[in-house]
Amino acid sequence: MPLPIEGILETALYVHDLEAAEAFYGGLLGLEVVTKAEGRHVFFRCGPGILLVFNADATRSESVKTNFPVPAHGTTGQGHACFRVARENIEAIRAKLVAADVEIEADFCWPNGARSIYFRDPAGNSLECAEPALWGIDDTQA
Amino acid sequence: MPLPIEGILETALYVHDLEAAEAFYGGLLGLEVVTKAEGRHVFFRCGPGILLVFNADATRSESVKTNFPVPAHGTTGQGHACFRVARENIEAIRAKLVAADVEIEADFCWPNGARSIYFRDPAGNSLECAEPALWGIDDTQA
Repeated sequence: MPLPIEGILETALYVHDLEAAEAFYGGLLGLEVVTKAEGRHVFFRCGPGILLVFNADATRSESVKTNFPVPAHGTTGQGHACFRVARENIEAIRAKLVAADVEIEADFCWPNGARSIYFRDPAGNSLECAEPALWGIDDTQA
Repeated sequence: MPLPIEGILETALYVHDLEAAEAFYGGLLGLEVVTKAEGRHVFFRCGPGILLVFNADATRSESVKTNFPVPAHGTTGQGHACFRVARENIEAIRAKLVAADVEIEADFCWPNGARSIYFRDPAGNSLECAEPALWGIDDTQA
């Protein structure tokens, strides 16, 4: 029997420059900052979930700054996350990214017709905007 | 104005042993495998989103195996993701993990009362199960 897991609540990416990340995710993408700790993290609300952006230099040696027994974690290299975007809104996102000089690294439709665009955050993480139909997920399903 | 981002559709973790990952996420956690490519990835449905588990050795040099212009990505080290679990189900998940000899690395309540448990996948990624109240997210909000 499957475990009663309802979905993913938190998605993590790692950066070195948290201020640049806040300008990008909060300023350009418009995600709401829910909490931040200087030098360690900035967290954003993203629909029914949370995007965690960490400085791995701080999270690899827990729990110095959290006061909670949060286990150590942290990666190097370019991670990936995909935002859920309605098909009719992908073009507007593309236009806003281009206007902000963010390169659209790829823009194509998958065999099932779903469109994806790819770009990078200031740390080089590979971000995607895709319509939920890519995975057979209904547009009305949050 | 915020961009029309509805949430996170895909969350990525990286491993070296995809078979071990499939046994863990698919077998133990019970997530449905939606697609896989030998040596490159195994993807799981997780509520209204998708958990992508990649072998970074394959994704750092795209697009050898995808036939699509998917940009390169890939991390090393221990990533993090948190599953959304109703408070009344966290204990059952803890029990199933313990029965499978998965160590519960931490189990505590945050200042707002929300409970989190932490454990690791076979690759060492730090996983968490938390109730959505941790982030002020309504239990009925998918």
